[in-house]
Parts: sequence; C-alpha cells; structure tokens
Amino acid sequence: MVSKDLKNNNKDSIKVPLSTNHKAINRFKQLQQKNINVEKLFESILTSDTTSLSKGITLIESTQPNHIQKSQQLVEKCLPHANQSLRIGITGVPGVGKSTFIEALGNTLIEKGKKVAVLAVDPSSTISKGSILGDKTRMESLVKSPKAFIRPSPSGKSLGGVAQKTRESIILCEAAGYDVIIIETVGVGQSETAVHSMVDFFLLLKLAGAGDELQGIKRGIIEMADAIVINKADGDNEIRARKAKNQFQKALHLYPLGQNNWSPEVLTCSALENKGIQEIWNIILKYVDITSKSGFFEKNRIQQNQYWLLQTIEEQLKSNFYNHPKVKSTLDEQIEAVQQHKITPFTAARYLLNLQKDQ
Amino acid sequence: MVSKDLKNNNKDSIKVPLSTNHKAINRFKQLQQKNINVEKLFESILTSDTTSLSKGITLIESTQPNHIQKSQQLVEKCLPHANQSLRIGITGVPGVGKSTFIEALGNTLIEKGKKVAVLAVDPSSTISKGSILGDKTRMESLVKSPKAFIRPSPSGKSLGGVAQKTRESIILCEAAGYDVIIIETVGVGQSETAVHSMVDFFLLLKLAGAGDELQGIKRGIIEMADAIVINKADGDNEIRARKAKNQFQKALHLYPLGQNNWSPEVLTCSALENKGIQEIWNIILKYVDITSKSGFFEKNRIQQNQYWLLQTIEEQLKSNFYNHPKVKSTLDEQIEAVQQHKITPFTAARYLLNLQKDQ
Repeated sequence: MVSKDLKNNNKDSIKVPLSTNHKAINRFKQLQQKNINVEKLFESILTSDTTSLSKGITLIESTQPNHIQKSQQLVEKCLPHANQSLRIGITGVPGVGKSTFIEALGNTLIEKGKKVAVLAVDPSSTISKGSILGDKTRMESLVKSPKAFIRPSPSGKSLGGVAQKTRESIILCEAAGYDVIIIETVGVGQSETAVHSMVDFFLLLKLAGAGDELQGIKRGIIEMADAIVINKADGDNEIRARKAKNQFQKALHLYPLGQNNWSPEVLTCSALENKGIQEIWNIILKYVDITSKSGFFEKNRIQQNQYWLLQTIEEQLKSNFYNHPKVKSTLDEQIEAVQQHKITPFTAARYLLNLQKDQ
Repeated sequence: MVSKDLKNNNKDSIKVPLSTNHKAINRFKQLQQKNINVEKLFESILTSDTTSLSKGITLIESTQPNHIQKSQQLVEKCLPHANQSLRIGITGVPGVGKSTFIEALGNTLIEKGKKVAVLAVDPSSTISKGSILGDKTRMESLVKSPKAFIRPSPSGKSLGGVAQKTRESIILCEAAGYDVIIIETVGVGQSETAVHSMVDFFLLLKLAGAGDELQGIKRGIIEMADAIVINKADGDNEIRARKAKNQFQKALHLYPLGQNNWSPEVLTCSALENKGIQEIWNIILKYVDITSKSGFFEKNRIQQNQYWLLQTIEEQLKSNFYNHPKVKSTLDEQIEAVQQHKITPFTAARYLLNLQKDQ
C-alpha cells in the first residue's frame, strides 16, 4: 500500500528509488492525515500550480475510500473548466522512440506558447515497475520546462482502473490550463483501445521495417490510427523510411474509412534531429479543423463520454461477479468442464450466475 | 407469445402466414401441454428424425421457464454426441446471393454423401419479419432434399439471445448426425462476430463492385474472413469479378495474419451456374487439414467454448443491471448529463451501480 502510493507521489512525477524519495514520503504522510481540503486544492489547480495538480492526481490514484470520495469531488469541480484541450494519443512498440518523439513534439508546442501535459496508460507498469515515463533520463528537456507537466502511468491491476484514473487526470490537467494533453501507451493488451477512446487524435509511431511493413502490427491498430509516423527517418534510414511510408499509404488506401471520414496520413520524421515534427503538428491541426467543421470532433467526445459510462458500469459488474467468493472458487472448474465439452457454456454460465445470487 | 413460437414451428422450418399454419398450431399446442419427454425426444434426434430435431430446436427457442429447463436437459444429453461436424459461417450483404450460394454448396456436399444443416443468425428478423431463410422460394432444391435441414433464424430482441439459441441448435444438429452446419448471417450489428465465434471457417460473400472493393465493407470483417468469395462471376460480370479478386488479394496480403496463421483465400464463383463451388469446398478442406495438423482447429473450439461461457455471463449481468427498474428509469437522464459534460462518466456509473444495490 505504502509503496504503491509512493510510486506516483514524487516531485517531477518521475519514479525514483523509494529510499531516496523523501519528499514523496512526506507528501504521503500528508495524505494519510486526511486533511485534504478539496476546495483549496481545486482552486490552486485552477491557478496552474503543478504541485497541486500532482497532489490531485495522486488523490485520484489512491485506493483509500476517503480519498476516492474526495477525488470524485475534485474531478467534478474541475469538470466545468475541462474539455478545452486537444488530446493526442501516441502508441508504438518499445524502441520506436516514443519518448524522443514526445519530447520533440512537446518542445515544438511549447515554443508556440502552448502548455503540454504528458500522461501514460501502461497497465503492465505494476509488473515491469513502470517502463513508461518512469526513467528520469527520458524527456530531459521537457521535464525541465515550466510549461510541461509529465506524469507516469498510474499503477493498477486492471486496464480499466488504470484508464479510468488517466481519464480523470485529463480533466484535472485541462482545469489547470494545459492546451495539449499527450497520452502515451506501449500497447499492452487492449491499452490502445482504451487510449483511443479518450483522445481526439490517435498517432501510431513506427520504424521502417524489413519491407513487409504491416506484418507484426497488432490487429485493429491500423483502423484506429489517424496518422502513422515513421520515426528515425535519418541518415541511412531515410530511404527505407520513405519506402515504408509508401507501403503504408498503399495499405491504408485499402482500409475502409472510419466514422470520422478521415483518410489517415502517413508521415516520416526524425525526432532525434527534430525533422518533420512541424508537418505532423500541421496534420493534427488539419484534422481538428476538418472534424470540428463536420461536427465529428464534438460528437466523438460525447460518444467517448457515453462509452466510458457504460464501460465503467460493465467492468464493475464483471469485477463484482468474478470476485464473488463462490464464483471465484468454482470458475476454473466450470471453464475446464466447458473446454472439455462436458457441459455447455450456457449451463455453466447459469450455474455460476446462480452462485452469485447466494450472498 | 403465440405468434413468436409459431414463427419457428412449421414443417419445413420456413415461415408461412399464420392463418395457414395448422401444423404449427398443433405442435404449439403439444408444447403447451408440457408433456415433452426429453429422453424420448433425445433418442429420436439421435436417429436423425427431422421432426424431432425441429421440435428440439423449438424447445430451445421457447422462453417458457418449463421449456428452458427441458431444453437445457436436452442440449446436455446431445452434447456428448456433438462436436464432430464442420461448422461454416457465411456472411454477405442482402443481394449478394447468399441463398443461391448456400443451395449450390449444400447440393454439392449432399452429392458427396454429406448431410447438411443450414441455420441463421439474424437479430433483425423480429423487426423485418425474418429476411433470412424466411422465404419458401429460396433454396427450393435444398429444402426438398432429405439430407438437408433448414431452419430460419430464431427471433429475439438481443443478438446474444439469438446467437445462444443458434449455438445450442448446432449441438442438436450435430447429435442428429449432420456433417456440415452452415450458419448464415446478413451481418446486422455485431452478428458477424457472433457467427465467427461459433464456426470453424468463416466465408465472406461479395459482388464485384465499382473498383474500390474495400469501400463499404464493415470494419473488422476482413480480419474475420478465412475466404472471400466473389459471387455472380458469370456472363459480363466475369472480368469484373476477376479484377475484384485481384484487388482483394492485394489488400489481404497487407493485413496481418490471424491466430490461425492462415492467409485468407480469394475466389470467384457463380452460384447460379454452379461454377467454382468445388474449388471453394477444396479450400475449406485445405483449411481444416492445415489447422487440424497445427492443432488450431481444436484449440479454436475450446477458445470458442470459453468465449461463450464468459459472454453469456457478461450479457446476463448487463441485462440484469439495465433491466433493474430504478436503473431503467434513471439511465437516460444520467447519459444526458454525461454527454453534456455536467458530471463525469465515473460519477454517473457509481450512482447507477448504487441504485442496483437497492432491491
């Protein structure tokens, strides 16, 4: 419990070894005192105070009943001040250069006078000890900028929980006046779907491969992407990156258009050499312009809100069911019987559903 | 209630106007008498008696508590005799020639000595009055064959319910000794996903279009298809069909392979002229051969069983929740508040979940 809260509780929101994290320990103690004044916290978040913003997000990430209630109040207070930022999702496998890319994009935006928040959704971070945004050496220049706010992924066992916390954190960041919120994910399990359903624009980061570019891409990801960016298009790699771009463009042409009626764009860039970043930002702005005019931008946010309502309900129902003691102790047995064609899935389902009724 | 049961209760399992359906009325009365002997019904299903098979499926489709219990017993009895057929899913938009295709394929298989059952999943049939397999003029020669069994889609409000009934009917058909079960769907809503998760081989039927073949195909369908068959490749249409085939092949090459490691095949046929049907059957056999050797065939069925167990549980949980009187009367209000950014989806979800707790 202690270590879990500490993880998300240090100054720059970047995890450092527990032993050295004195500030976090102090802040954790403060939380423990249960003397959080939601009204005060809310007001200082509105003034863009990053310490208060961090504190607010830590409150969201806490699992203590007292904190859950307070964080709910805080998020509700922030809600009327939220919803005005541009939310960008970025996914790509490890090694594709996500951090360097986000740093390059973030710095470009800050130069334009924008305030940028970077959040992450990584349900594996509890196991892998936080691969995303968890390394102090990453995004060094962005970390130092007063106009940037960087926060590692909340820890949590379920993607649903992690995603919910991130989505509530977006509201706090927006109330604190951040203009662009970047949500990063490594794409473990269904995390891309979760991120896709909380952002306005979804960007897939790729490297030029060995020629057959679409092999190895998870199913369904291409359909989500509003842009595919081939990173590390520098030096010897530039020709291969252009070839990859070509192949992706051909492939995308064959995919049916989504609800937004937008043909996904394929671009190359070198985040390291800061090449191609402005072009990517232009595409994002073009997307916002077109979808705002068509009404899709707002419609999509409304749909996302509804999606999250139903999603949260359904996850809670499932969680209640699968954690019911009787169900928990019998489920594996029933699954095995079904797998071996001993009983039908429907009989097993009825049996398990009846167990839950017994309190 | 009466009309609902009658719909699925006539001799050839093809709907005819209520007024003329005397046999169905009689059979319905028999059901009403509650004197169904499950053991007897089971035994005569095992002897391939189609009247008993029809009766069994009608029992599965009934919503009376007494019938539900008996149908469950019947399906469990049939289960050890099931699981030995080849299950083929066929989807395609209206007008693509699904009936003619199924008739051609079915007749080809019957000539080879196989027994063929044709079922349908069409959750819209209650509204549209049964578009699939609901027309006596369709599949005329197949209807007459003693080696074919044809059954229209069960009616029902939810896809989950319709799909569950069809899946239980598959078990009965298998116990009755059918070698090939064809499941047809028009692809309303998520019905392709439901059918895909109950078959071994999934076939997408298409027409040669105006050149841009993938436009207008629902997202996700391509990934499900083990084969794409371009129908009506006859007369003037043959050249266009070949072109379409070519384009689909190119497109499919760009899609990542699925779990079965199978590159979907693209074929042309003329169901009307009975051309290309044998080639399609050869591909299906090739698929069965390869996936049986790799172990995927059996693994997939086990996964499907598990999928249906969890799916049934989750649908029932949702149905219980959304039909709770207090939830029902408040849900729209909450959705509206969420859409208008008045409350967060998470607050609304918590509120609604608490309502269900009050009995």
